[in-house]
Amino acid sequence: MRMYDLIIKKRDGLELSKEEINYFVKNLTEGNIADYHVAAFLMAVFLKKMNKRETADLTQAMMHSGDVVDLSQISGIKVDKHSTGGVGDTTTLVLAPLVASCGVPVAKMSGRGLGHTGGTIDKLEAIEGFHVEISIDDFINNVNKHGIAVIGQTKNIAPADKKIYALRDVTATVDNISLIASSIMSKKLAAGSDAIVLDVKVGSGAFMKTIEDAIELGKEMVEIGQIMDKNTIAIITDMEQPLGFAIGNALEVKEAIDTLNNEGPEDLTELCVKLGSNMVYLGGGADSVEAAEKLIREKLANGEAFEKFKEFISIQGGNVDVINDPSKLPSADHVREIKSDVEGYLETIKSDSVGIAAMKLGAGRETLDSVLDMSAGIILNKKVGDKINKGDVIATLYTNTQSKLDESEKMFLDAITITKDEVASRKLIKAIVNRDGVQKF
Amino acid sequence: MRMYDLIIKKRDGLELSKEEINYFVKNLTEGNIADYHVAAFLMAVFLKKMNKRETADLTQAMMHSGDVVDLSQISGIKVDKHSTGGVGDTTTLVLAPLVASCGVPVAKMSGRGLGHTGGTIDKLEAIEGFHVEISIDDFINNVNKHGIAVIGQTKNIAPADKKIYALRDVTATVDNISLIASSIMSKKLAAGSDAIVLDVKVGSGAFMKTIEDAIELGKEMVEIGQIMDKNTIAIITDMEQPLGFAIGNALEVKEAIDTLNNEGPEDLTELCVKLGSNMVYLGGGADSVEAAEKLIREKLANGEAFEKFKEFISIQGGNVDVINDPSKLPSADHVREIKSDVEGYLETIKSDSVGIAAMKLGAGRETLDSVLDMSAGIILNKKVGDKINKGDVIATLYTNTQSKLDESEKMFLDAITITKDEVASRKLIKAIVNRDGVQKF
Repeated sequence: MRMYDLIIKKRDGLELSKEEINYFVKNLTEGNIADYHVAAFLMAVFLKKMNKRETADLTQAMMHSGDVVDLSQISGIKVDKHSTGGVGDTTTLVLAPLVASCGVPVAKMSGRGLGHTGGTIDKLEAIEGFHVEISIDDFINNVNKHGIAVIGQTKNIAPADKKIYALRDVTATVDNISLIASSIMSKKLAAGSDAIVLDVKVGSGAFMKTIEDAIELGKEMVEIGQIMDKNTIAIITDMEQPLGFAIGNALEVKEAIDTLNNEGPEDLTELCVKLGSNMVYLGGGADSVEAAEKLIREKLANGEAFEKFKEFISIQGGNVDVINDPSKLPSADHVREIKSDVEGYLETIKSDSVGIAAMKLGAGRETLDSVLDMSAGIILNKKVGDKINKGDVIATLYTNTQSKLDESEKMFLDAITITKDEVASRKLIKAIVNRDGVQKF
Repeated sequence: MRMYDLIIKKRDGLELSKEEINYFVKNLTEGNIADYHVAAFLMAVFLKKMNKRETADLTQAMMHSGDVVDLSQISGIKVDKHSTGGVGDTTTLVLAPLVASCGVPVAKMSGRGLGHTGGTIDKLEAIEGFHVEISIDDFINNVNKHGIAVIGQTKNIAPADKKIYALRDVTATVDNISLIASSIMSKKLAAGSDAIVLDVKVGSGAFMKTIEDAIELGKEMVEIGQIMDKNTIAIITDMEQPLGFAIGNALEVKEAIDTLNNEGPEDLTELCVKLGSNMVYLGGGADSVEAAEKLIREKLANGEAFEKFKEFISIQGGNVDVINDPSKLPSADHVREIKSDVEGYLETIKSDSVGIAAMKLGAGRETLDSVLDMSAGIILNKKVGDKINKGDVIATLYTNTQSKLDESEKMFLDAITITKDEVASRKLIKAIVNRDGVQKF
């Protein structure tokens, strides 16, 4: 078998066999395939597409290209959650304790942020003392004892996906449904989960620009899950504006605390309830999604979800005082309110541009070795559809680097539009895809 | 400008501007573009195609990526000829003196063979003492004084094309009409010719598998020529069997001598007359292609073409005794006749397989540093359509490496089919493409 022949086959729109896909992934992982071969192959895949069988085979091959985590020592059904990436996405911080409080084990492997904003681990590290450098044994023990643990992702999860992603990123072959689906699912499956709930973002700030594409991606991943015997549900959600109000590490921890106290932003709460209900249902914590939703709302209302969060933070070395009094979170030296000089309705908030504005303030990494400013970020005081009067605060910027405020403010203002006419507020949940089909809202 | 954006544009089927194509070629030549970028770009070009404007711009950019030879010191219109590659293609050896004998200057820059069989220079070096290592001044002087000279290709002709070709070769992106046309035309234009006659091969042994594709390629090159103000004609010729009878360096020199004496194979003679007539017409040696053909046939019949060949060989150091007595050419120690054990009609001769069989005997280079056996090769004793009786010699193998005979014989027999039913002989000239359109035969 030669990579050259695989390129020809895909270039000509033919279906690759399981053996051919395995050959590609194995040799790629071992460093036997030249970058130019991979690049030409990826462009052929991008333009000629892969069918569901090929996509499932690619997923399996990438999943097995490195370590496959064995969580069998954890009793119960382990449900993982994945978001296709958004701005101000605080869901994991809320969801993990929320689901655990419903008795479904949460064994979460998480990463640091590579894009505009911090990842889940970066956010948690805004809490004094909290750390994810725990052994796999402690990780398993914590889940069995407390129902929850978060660990940093090991280096050897789906290494083939890492290599392919790096080349997709530079060759303009990221936005292909088969390649996105196999990349996400290979990592989740290698992380040892029994069932998966996916949050597929749609909109100008997301990979998927249209609802049709997002549903297609959801279906692809649900079917891969089915082939691999891992129950999978995809929830298609709006990413035409950032989720919640907060963008930035400590700011999002504060928002997560509010949400776990049932006082969070409406959209973030709604998303956590929907994702959580499905996770609890798949994890066997309720007989139906409806029953799971009832349970979830109870745990938010009665404080048990918040208690579980504190328990979790405490086990992993975090200072619970900070959770009880969020004013002890890192705070910024410089705060600037952005006020409106016009009257009207907030029409658009470009998520990715706002993410970059937050990054400039220190909330995300411009380069791999950038040091995060935990206090930095943006609070949205208005969301799409809100009425704005002259002088109203639209957003507040936080940073320890005063010199960045002007640039960030300009970027923020460029990222929004205000219109004279009334604007409808945006619906968050667009569709749910599961084994039974697609339900649109 | 970034290569990444050019990849996206072509991936999405958009037209690249002249500036973008120049950016690509300039930075590629300077080594500023990663191979994986070029590979992804080439696959996008392969699948989404380039239009005629883009192809012409790519040609111009590659032409100017290295030296552009200045032949202005040679008086008259310099007409170059290019073949898209075939097996047993002895035409240049015949054409150069034939056209020169009609008073049209032949200033030929030629290469060594990289594929199955030797290139024009390899073939000429089968003649004792002949060499192409002459200065550019001698080259120009020889053409002005004798009307003919052949020089080895300098290293810096269209270096961008060399880089692109090397990556096309390994990424399965060779067979694209825009890429083939721009590659050929950029080199011919950089070699300083004023007009170009192209021999576009079509058939199983050629790049172009169908007559439609071959005509398309011809049209593309004729149009590039028009844009660049260089009169160009493309002749589409059959490559379903090797041209002439001889494959191998000394064997082809002998065949060229026969042809210049008007005693050559019918198909080779016909092709040389057609290509030569068009070259003489474009070079201003006759008022019409018909008049040029009449002149060409005269020069073959009256011996002037053969005299010009001897003059040319002599100026470049070759021993003319060898031309007068071809038995003095390198001869092989081992000769094997392949006889038929069936009766019937020769139906197919797969050119490329026969080429490889000749290479195995020593006629071509298996690797870049292989040393050629000048005497090695194959003489076809039958061509497609010929009646074959049991015991008839179909072909004769020549080599100095006896151990290669069995393998080569087996390859040759695998490359031909003999059928019971009568088979029509093949028509060589399929179509002519010029500025006025396409004429099919």
